[in-house]
Amino acid sequence: MPELRKDPIIGRWVIIATERAKRPDQFGVSAQGPQESTCPFCEGQESHTPPEIYAIRPNRTPANTAGWELRVVPSISPFLRIEGDLDRHGRGIYDLMNGIGAHEIVIETNKHTANIADLGEEQVTKIINAYIDRIRDLEKDRRFKYVLVFKNHGWVAGGGRVQHSRSQLIATPVNPKRVKEELAGSRHYYEHHERCIFCDLIKQELENKERVILDIDGFLAITPFASRFPFEVWILPKKHSPDFITLDMAMRREFARILKQVLLKLKVGLNDPPYNYIFHTAPFRREKVGYWKSIDYDYHWHIEIMPRLTRVAGFEWGTGFYICPLPPENAAKFLREVNIG
Amino acid sequence: MPELRKDPIIGRWVIIATERAKRPDQFGVSAQGPQESTCPFCEGQESHTPPEIYAIRPNRTPANTAGWELRVVPSISPFLRIEGDLDRHGRGIYDLMNGIGAHEIVIETNKHTANIADLGEEQVTKIINAYIDRIRDLEKDRRFKYVLVFKNHGWVAGGGRVQHSRSQLIATPVNPKRVKEELAGSRHYYEHHERCIFCDLIKQELENKERVILDIDGFLAITPFASRFPFEVWILPKKHSPDFITLDMAMRREFARILKQVLLKLKVGLNDPPYNYIFHTAPFRREKVGYWKSIDYDYHWHIEIMPRLTRVAGFEWGTGFYICPLPPENAAKFLREVNIG
Repeated sequence: MPELRKDPIIGRWVIIATERAKRPDQFGVSAQGPQESTCPFCEGQESHTPPEIYAIRPNRTPANTAGWELRVVPSISPFLRIEGDLDRHGRGIYDLMNGIGAHEIVIETNKHTANIADLGEEQVTKIINAYIDRIRDLEKDRRFKYVLVFKNHGWVAGGGRVQHSRSQLIATPVNPKRVKEELAGSRHYYEHHERCIFCDLIKQELENKERVILDIDGFLAITPFASRFPFEVWILPKKHSPDFITLDMAMRREFARILKQVLLKLKVGLNDPPYNYIFHTAPFRREKVGYWKSIDYDYHWHIEIMPRLTRVAGFEWGTGFYICPLPPENAAKFLREVNIG
Repeated sequence: MPELRKDPIIGRWVIIATERAKRPDQFGVSAQGPQESTCPFCEGQESHTPPEIYAIRPNRTPANTAGWELRVVPSISPFLRIEGDLDRHGRGIYDLMNGIGAHEIVIETNKHTANIADLGEEQVTKIINAYIDRIRDLEKDRRFKYVLVFKNHGWVAGGGRVQHSRSQLIATPVNPKRVKEELAGSRHYYEHHERCIFCDLIKQELENKERVILDIDGFLAITPFASRFPFEVWILPKKHSPDFITLDMAMRREFARILKQVLLKLKVGLNDPPYNYIFHTAPFRREKVGYWKSIDYDYHWHIEIMPRLTRVAGFEWGTGFYICPLPPENAAKFLREVNIG
């Protein structure tokens, strides 16, 4: 059973792999890079993945056969295990619990070589639908506090040896440190101003415009004021909304449109760079603030896209203090001008 | 002038390069890797660096000539500028200030090909002395709150195109986010227990022993309980000590001995892996707690060494939630058994 361990000083939870752990002597430096083998995510290879959890099958083909447009399957080498109790306990000054959680793979297309940036808006909407359906299902499990939705595109960004376009969901029994920090920061702002900090940020960015990449329908794509990385992009709903999974069908299509356009601008403008994207949304179970207790005023979901164009040095790793070699205003101007037809 | 900008939600400061900024179209993906040019850090090449700030010259040779054992020079492309006022100000909801600071390079040896792990204990002690001397000098500048001391070894870890062994110091007018978190965490523990959390951690590790790599003189090298990376190592003074720069000469030699041994074990056991190390020490100016106000009870300096053997995926970047594929107990056992003669 993997373990979830907490750093006693700063409270950061870490997954310590046990069963799937490599031996220490397998970590030495060696030449490594992507090596394509038979792709288990292609149509016709359904027997190479664990049985599907979710699929879009327009012609009602049987589960785990060909004839699908999108599949969600459990990871074949999950970081966390679905069966068992959390068994939170202490060990002297340390806190730990069993590594309980879910780890699922969203196979975004049945075409092996497709890049998400080149998929149609319809297909990207289906990916969004799959994320929301899976989060809604995982939310029912009372052991889980959060579902991380993310994508690793390209080898440098942590993508696997097989290139088939996919993203991942990880349900965790703890809230990630960064999420807790954002919640604390935005609640602090709310308590002081009785306004959402992200709503204020959006208002200022729309007035100022120099960091705006795209402003389409209900969504805004910007390079953040304190960007950590060149071409870091955030996409936010313009109207206050704490939780990604409450998006209605019309908004899902609008979000798919802007997400696709941003990813295509990155692909065309920067020669298909490696990147990660991560959804930031409200955790499942939390105390809500606001004039009416049933409404969340203090968080605002968004997605952060981080191209991996620079190496991150020790300075930045160990300190959380980043050096961004490109002003975000220049990055936004560049991306605004990338022609995607 | 570079800018220091603060993320309004979580309070993370970021350096935004301006003058030395690359153009946006210089960021596209291209093949790149180390390319050795004439090394400005070798003996005889002193005119290729800015004038030295500090040097060890046993035969009293003139500054900026050959005949030195170690030199400290300003960075030729500093992230921060030494001249000017901070001019802290707001811009709507955002906070920023001028990018004032110092950025210095510690040239650790006059031999181009030397690896710090192979230097003698005497030379490593000289490196420690240089760090402390430079921090003591930078501390006098009231604009600065902290000096980051770190090393990027190897290309993957952010090392430069020239391989000459060196480390870096960056003096900043803000405390890095990670430092603030450690201070807050250890103060919180102190307020509750009236004990230093690091002292308690050391006591438990010495009793338990499974994560101890080396226990020499006044220092302990361990793999931390909640390791983020395989073979992550912390070295801590066993006796309570908040501030690295208060080390006496005997302790500096002891620290040099254990640092060298740990780096040599990593080099031999893992085939000279890329790594970063970062000193974690108390900031210059802070309120002190304790039974006697003149003594710091709530922080404990240490060094963190992070081999870069795994790619870090989007999941970990965006969330501060790491997956470590090797239990730290296994890593410690492996490193204990590496024979360094």
